[in-house]
Amino acid sequence: MAALDAILNDIDTDLENALERLFAFLRIPSISTEPAHAGDCRAAAAWLAQDLTALGFETSVEDTSLHPVVLATKPKPGAPHVLFYGHYDVQPVDPLDLWTTPPFEPRIASDAEGRKTIVGRGSSDDKGQVMTFVEACRAHIAMSGELPCGVTILIEGAEESGSQGLPEWVAANRDRLGCDVVLVCDTGMWDRTTPAITSSLRGLAYFEVKVTCADRDLHSGFFGGAARNPIHVLAKIIADLHDEDGRVTIPGFYDGVHERPPEVLEQWRGLGLTPETLLGPIGLKEPAGERGRMPIELVQSRPSCDANGIIGGYTGEGTKTVIASTASAKISFRLVDDQDPKVLAERFEAFVRERVPSDCTVDVITYKGSRAISLPFDMPQLGAAKAALAEEWGVPAVTVGAGGSIPIVGDFKRLLNRDTLLIGFGLDDDRIHSPNEKYDLTSFHKGTRSWARILAALGQG
Amino acid sequence: MAALDAILNDIDTDLENALERLFAFLRIPSISTEPAHAGDCRAAAAWLAQDLTALGFETSVEDTSLHPVVLATKPKPGAPHVLFYGHYDVQPVDPLDLWTTPPFEPRIASDAEGRKTIVGRGSSDDKGQVMTFVEACRAHIAMSGELPCGVTILIEGAEESGSQGLPEWVAANRDRLGCDVVLVCDTGMWDRTTPAITSSLRGLAYFEVKVTCADRDLHSGFFGGAARNPIHVLAKIIADLHDEDGRVTIPGFYDGVHERPPEVLEQWRGLGLTPETLLGPIGLKEPAGERGRMPIELVQSRPSCDANGIIGGYTGEGTKTVIASTASAKISFRLVDDQDPKVLAERFEAFVRERVPSDCTVDVITYKGSRAISLPFDMPQLGAAKAALAEEWGVPAVTVGAGGSIPIVGDFKRLLNRDTLLIGFGLDDDRIHSPNEKYDLTSFHKGTRSWARILAALGQG
Repeated sequence: MAALDAILNDIDTDLENALERLFAFLRIPSISTEPAHAGDCRAAAAWLAQDLTALGFETSVEDTSLHPVVLATKPKPGAPHVLFYGHYDVQPVDPLDLWTTPPFEPRIASDAEGRKTIVGRGSSDDKGQVMTFVEACRAHIAMSGELPCGVTILIEGAEESGSQGLPEWVAANRDRLGCDVVLVCDTGMWDRTTPAITSSLRGLAYFEVKVTCADRDLHSGFFGGAARNPIHVLAKIIADLHDEDGRVTIPGFYDGVHERPPEVLEQWRGLGLTPETLLGPIGLKEPAGERGRMPIELVQSRPSCDANGIIGGYTGEGTKTVIASTASAKISFRLVDDQDPKVLAERFEAFVRERVPSDCTVDVITYKGSRAISLPFDMPQLGAAKAALAEEWGVPAVTVGAGGSIPIVGDFKRLLNRDTLLIGFGLDDDRIHSPNEKYDLTSFHKGTRSWARILAALGQG
Repeated sequence: MAALDAILNDIDTDLENALERLFAFLRIPSISTEPAHAGDCRAAAAWLAQDLTALGFETSVEDTSLHPVVLATKPKPGAPHVLFYGHYDVQPVDPLDLWTTPPFEPRIASDAEGRKTIVGRGSSDDKGQVMTFVEACRAHIAMSGELPCGVTILIEGAEESGSQGLPEWVAANRDRLGCDVVLVCDTGMWDRTTPAITSSLRGLAYFEVKVTCADRDLHSGFFGGAARNPIHVLAKIIADLHDEDGRVTIPGFYDGVHERPPEVLEQWRGLGLTPETLLGPIGLKEPAGERGRMPIELVQSRPSCDANGIIGGYTGEGTKTVIASTASAKISFRLVDDQDPKVLAERFEAFVRERVPSDCTVDVITYKGSRAISLPFDMPQLGAAKAALAEEWGVPAVTVGAGGSIPIVGDFKRLLNRDTLLIGFGLDDDRIHSPNEKYDLTSFHKGTRSWARILAALGQG
């Protein structure tokens, strides 16, 4: 096997080519939640499969109930084996008019300080992150003709659709996914200079609520004051979801939520974070959630509830004096500790139905939910990965909880009985899920180098 | 002058041609609130001007600050003079997918009972109603070579845009609008067999509220529980607008609202209306407004508040875990008696601003408002019109209050010092402002005959 220095050097000198490959991947508009882009999801899977085949992986593209997965394996008998997971699908791009350049025409941008970024939908979430791992494999293979450990790569295409179909596919293919540890690159760094390993993730429960009142749109002049307005019904439901102290009011919602021990709270307090630290960069000042808790505590250890979208009535230019027949909202919850998304689904639906007048109807759609997860601190691979990250970045890697949800991590534990190291190079200002998503060039370059080091370290395990 | 019977007979035998003319008018998609249809508004004005010119009116199309008005005059020295007002603009057509046939391809439909209707946007509101008056003039002129009284016809193109520009145009042209009485055909019958004259109209105040929290869309995993959600802020504002008893909570909102005298309430009670009478046909049962008041009282004599539209965050298919940067709603009020839309605008904006957190921003747009109006019961022309309607329909015409607003009626009173007879042939199930708008063939045919009789009666005044 080549010396690690040669491999890292190869990554440095091949950076331009690596960016060209990433750009080709980013140009495919693989939006999994929009049926019109199903063909693009398939194209993204095919692109990746071709790239991994060229690297010598035994590769296949396999159907699930939504979009296909890419499965690529390069065994190394006698060595440890890792399973790398990521996703090739991306978020929708609306509102499109807020993008400075088209979302699927990736480009390198420079800010006033000379910081270079890769701009485009999926640059950070998750195509750019996936390619840090693929490029690290490429460098090992280019310099050594082999990988330091056995590697299986599983890249799905429905993560932004709640990983629809993936748990069933994993369950049916668990004998092809044997490994010592799972690696995921879909999380962030602590800050621009400090790498992080994510040790806990909030769960998710996602619903859509559609209220129907009259059987047609009405003229507000004729019916205003007598006919029920579904926007009012929905607004009341959303307003009722939180009390004056920012707590969620659904009965039993906090069942299974545990207070963090005093030493953890003390450690958070010691970070010297103010509300401005988290909220200043997005133009806000006042924490909005449960009163009396630190922002870091709110996003890492507390459940939350957000209306993610709402629509009803006339939303065009100017005025229309209409009372709509229907109005609908998407409402989701982030879960922690032992909160059960199935129990919440029942309680949420009851909460909603109680607030819908008897002559109106409501449909509640429950999308896939996931429990929160947390990793054991004594994982053997954790120390090796932390050391490798520290060597690359020159500072110790911190272990953090993350607010987001990666449901499949729980499925890997349940179905494969394996824990997951969540190591990613995203930054808080990456604007994932928003217009002008970007990935720092440093994240991409040093992320690739980090994985090269981690693979080498795990190969020695 | 020809006998009235000959004129009515001409209307009967010319019905097919009258429908062809109306269909040509309905095919022009003159949606005044959508800038893309400005050319269509101009085309509708031109179509009407050409038709009126052919009838011998001195006609012009004149610019206002939004869409042009059509002004057509046929004086008759020594005879009374009437000013007829209507509008050629129509409502937007969304949601388009709920239309059974395209909104601007008018057609005759028959229901199971053999009732025939004219289906298409504007068939009832207001092109079909306008053409009842034009066709009545046509029959008089065809049979007699003249009209029984002097007639000025003013058809505007911005009624669905709050009559933007019209009051200014009327003020600047008041010497060309001299008349004894104003006639308007933009209201409804009491039911399918009973004609009505509308003697009062609610006013209108219309606002748009846009709340902005963070300066970008956020990932709910990273920020949920800590960042303010503008959909929640807006939902709280809307929910707060009514109390548990259905009353509007804006301080001072009911200033200037008068209770109806006991005899009026008694008369309403005597009608034997149940909530089902008004709400059953639209699929509802429970009155939604102020508790303890009759539905007819709510829509005819009480003010109301409705959110006419709301939008924010992700509204596409499936899920997106986003916390939106902005959310906005259109909110309007129907006003009665002495409520002042300008005073309400100040109170509403204060009410909204009190509910927006200090680190968020809100824009409140105030669209044009109008006060409520009511007509004197001793108008000399009222008796003549009621008698003419009774002859046509075989039952007495009822005098009613209407929930809707026709702001220009107040302007005619203020600028021309003339009262307005509101006589229309729309029905409650016409679905104006909704998909599949229709106008009963009977409304069109007997409406035309009604105007022929009314013109003859007023000419004798």
